[in-house]
Amino acid sequence: MSKELFKNKDIKINLKSGITIPNDKLIIAGPCAIEGYNQLLDTAKFVKAIGANVLRGGAYKPRTSPFSFQGMKEEGLEILKSVKKEVKIPVVTELMDVRDFDKVYDVADIIQIGSRNMHNFPLLVEVGKQDKPVFLKRGMSATIDEWIKAAEYIAIGGNTNIIMCERGIRTYNDYTRNTLDLAAVPIIKKETGLPVVVDPSHGTGVRELVKPMSLASFAAGADGIMVEVHPNPKNALSDGKQSLTFDEFEDLLISLKNGAI
Amino acid sequence: MSKELFKNKDIKINLKSGITIPNDKLIIAGPCAIEGYNQLLDTAKFVKAIGANVLRGGAYKPRTSPFSFQGMKEEGLEILKSVKKEVKIPVVTELMDVRDFDKVYDVADIIQIGSRNMHNFPLLVEVGKQDKPVFLKRGMSATIDEWIKAAEYIAIGGNTNIIMCERGIRTYNDYTRNTLDLAAVPIIKKETGLPVVVDPSHGTGVRELVKPMSLASFAAGADGIMVEVHPNPKNALSDGKQSLTFDEFEDLLISLKNGAI
Amino acid sequence: MSKELFKNKDIKINLKSGITIPNDKLIIAGPCAIEGYNQLLDTAKFVKAIGANVLRGGAYKPRTSPFSFQGMKEEGLEILKSVKKEVKIPVVTELMDVRDFDKVYDVADIIQIGSRNMHNFPLLVEVGKQDKPVFLKRGMSATIDEWIKAAEYIAIGGNTNIIMCERGIRTYNDYTRNTLDLAAVPIIKKETGLPVVVDPSHGTGVRELVKPMSLASFAAGADGIMVEVHPNPKNALSDGKQSLTFDEFEDLLISLKNGAI
Amino acid sequence: MSKELFKNKDIKINLKSGITIPNDKLIIAGPCAIEGYNQLLDTAKFVKAIGANVLRGGAYKPRTSPFSFQGMKEEGLEILKSVKKEVKIPVVTELMDVRDFDKVYDVADIIQIGSRNMHNFPLLVEVGKQDKPVFLKRGMSATIDEWIKAAEYIAIGGNTNIIMCERGIRTYNDYTRNTLDLAAVPIIKKETGLPVVVDPSHGTGVRELVKPMSLASFAAGADGIMVEVHPNPKNALSDGKQSLTFDEFEDLLISLKNGAI
Repeated sequence: MSKELFKNKDIKINLKSGITIPNDKLIIAGPCAIEGYNQLLDTAKFVKAIGANVLRGGAYKPRTSPFSFQGMKEEGLEILKSVKKEVKIPVVTELMDVRDFDKVYDVADIIQIGSRNMHNFPLLVEVGKQDKPVFLKRGMSATIDEWIKAAEYIAIGGNTNIIMCERGIRTYNDYTRNTLDLAAVPIIKKETGLPVVVDPSHGTGVRELVKPMSLASFAAGADGIMVEVHPNPKNALSDGKQSLTFDEFEDLLISLKNGAI
Repeated sequence: MSKELFKNKDIKINLKSGITIPNDKLIIAGPCAIEGYNQLLDTAKFVKAIGANVLRGGAYKPRTSPFSFQGMKEEGLEILKSVKKEVKIPVVTELMDVRDFDKVYDVADIIQIGSRNMHNFPLLVEVGKQDKPVFLKRGMSATIDEWIKAAEYIAIGGNTNIIMCERGIRTYNDYTRNTLDLAAVPIIKKETGLPVVVDPSHGTGVRELVKPMSLASFAAGADGIMVEVHPNPKNALSDGKQSLTFDEFEDLLISLKNGAI
Repeated sequence: MSKELFKNKDIKINLKSGITIPNDKLIIAGPCAIEGYNQLLDTAKFVKAIGANVLRGGAYKPRTSPFSFQGMKEEGLEILKSVKKEVKIPVVTELMDVRDFDKVYDVADIIQIGSRNMHNFPLLVEVGKQDKPVFLKRGMSATIDEWIKAAEYIAIGGNTNIIMCERGIRTYNDYTRNTLDLAAVPIIKKETGLPVVVDPSHGTGVRELVKPMSLASFAAGADGIMVEVHPNPKNALSDGKQSLTFDEFEDLLISLKNGAI
Repeated sequence: MSKELFKNKDIKINLKSGITIPNDKLIIAGPCAIEGYNQLLDTAKFVKAIGANVLRGGAYKPRTSPFSFQGMKEEGLEILKSVKKEVKIPVVTELMDVRDFDKVYDVADIIQIGSRNMHNFPLLVEVGKQDKPVFLKRGMSATIDEWIKAAEYIAIGGNTNIIMCERGIRTYNDYTRNTLDLAAVPIIKKETGLPVVVDPSHGTGVRELVKPMSLASFAAGADGIMVEVHPNPKNALSDGKQSLTFDEFEDLLISLKNGAI
């Protein structure tokens, strides 16, 4: 494993609102999918007020079944643009298709490559040629080496502003949706120097585990967390079981401020 | 799990040279990657003479590292086109990028979606809108359900000419490159009615295991095999360890004809 | 990996009734657990009449929960002894506890070490010091190397009459109970020269998959199969979903005789 | 999943030196294997001085190969007994064979059941009938449910003084020896109320990862850690790569005291 593409780069990622990584810890929060203007606006206002510094929200959703809700797409991006402007918070959203690049680039402050696309090399090459930070989720069963090489596909284009996101791996475990591999945090930081963010929502799939795993992530050296928050998880169009309510998110942030970060 | 999209369709896939699935067993053979005109021509002539009825050969290669050989791309497709015409054998080749669709469509008799792209939904949707058979490899850690739903992404566009390819899954096993899950063969046939082909080359990563696993695949009910064959595996630009020599391929075909299929 | 303990041993295992391995193919059949005299007698008579050459039946059952049926223990061994005498068929039964060695040795023609005990080294050492063949099931997540080294724990005691049993490994797959790793068959034969039997009942956990996986096992080079058969699977005290009815077992044996072995 | 056997028990484990769980955090340290009197004495003195409250040290070692060092056995237990008396620290050591029960019981303050024996039900039943706390390591590929049911095998004998130890599970990951599943910590605590200790040494197999994973374990709610420490890891007879030097252990304890526990 090599960090030739990354070392001596003194990577410092600058986001809006004066946030820089690794100086600041990233608290990325928001709904799995954008479901409407009010849903996103309410969530954005709340999570920002509580301490989140980046808003998440998917307009294009990669779903296992073609019959599941696929995201609001262009309409979702428009909502994201409006909410971002109104709430004044940088946003991360997923790019699934090279043909949607311009539309996503127009809105996103950070471009997310999801787990299912970690091996979508043409997509990686594309986001490596542009200037916005890339949020690279680990593939469902990617080794450390494969994940780093996916980052290299981005870096060869010149863009080394890459945030690595550990989001759990696929194992035989059946209590949790995935097995969160927190050892990946210090490993990736050592091997590449890149910032690492943990997604305990997908990493466990269980609402009650988001808080302890968030605390553990920072203890392991993570540069941030990405957490799903929804005004009403029971009615969420996707990932309701792993989304925090507003109250739960506030409780998490209080715990984090009490010493963890 | 449902086979609503597939059942009662009486799926019969017609390839050139009068081959129909499931009436005929598919013997797909050829190099992992197209490396040059002579390499492909020699291999095509040989495998056809021995009994293969489809030629494989990758022009676009999804490689873990951006620094590995990425395939001959357009030049590779041109070679494939020439060899196909000269040897008169249908060909399967991989499509990795929606933007390359026209070029691949122009040459391929069967369009392959590789393991790394089983979850690349925009790509699946694209090949679902055209009329050529699609060869859908199972994702590295895809469940049966996810694999079938990937086929549904293709089928919703109207194209149900889908060949499912079991190519091994990722497990803790370290002797083989992947763990070939032959139980998937009868399962997929029962759940969808679609033809299933096994790739013992990727499924094991070990040359000596290709023959016993090919025999086992047909015994389990497979409609075909996809086998990597190379004139000189030691010098192959990719997957040399799992590629058969011409002699080994001939030995395999003799065994198959002696009762297995 | 080495086969020093096994090679040049010319291993030939002699069972009662003139069966020798590897000359004969092993067809081991019977209930998961001995549940009573009539259940075992009826099954034994039937499977022998149809073509089985070894009877299986557990008296001591390693069950995940302490509240599940744990086997008939000594009473089960007595039943096994009577049925064996009456039906004249060699028997294999599991040893779980070194303290039960004498009782199991008294009845068994082949002593089974179950998956959960593949790493129970004191038990392995014990069966290595006696003269009856040992049926060594692969551990739930054992690598090839660990499995061979478990066989070495037996062989260092002097007993190299070891039958290796592939029974599926634990993976993320959720359609089947385990993932049957048929590539292990040629691998173990190459690395150790020991006979390999496949257990498609535990290997899949799904009744309808037992037949295709049995056929595939022999095609891959297996020396035998171990199959669960029960007079009334719906009422079985354990493993009912994967047990064949008498009719299904007969259908399997007909298929095997039609060319597979 | 049920915690009927555990709930309302108000489990409070009392060790020597006034340590009680869950009131105190367990810092278990020492060599993988007892290799000699001085090795153990030096380590015991050092780890106690720095802040460990339990000494670990294996006399019986379950090793993958029968040709690897198998532990000093009875001689090792004698050394452990002497060191325990001299240093005045409670000790945990592994029981592998029911026939060694009396010898291990005589020395151990906590009886360890290793990963390879989590499914050795006769051994679990045996330690359930005695009065010393049991340290139950999770099996290599045990689900949460199987692990809890293994604890139930102990508890049905009357002994509910069980410490659950997460030590990593087997996955496809190849950078680390195992994948440490820290989500198991809050899950086990919720489902059973039993204390949970994490073993980051086996959980990662990599010395540099022991510290960040120890910090993360406590953040996730663990009641303790078990860490391998050796005077000279390079010369250790087992597990040298994952053992901390004295300096590294001191550095770890300083970090823990600075806020983590």
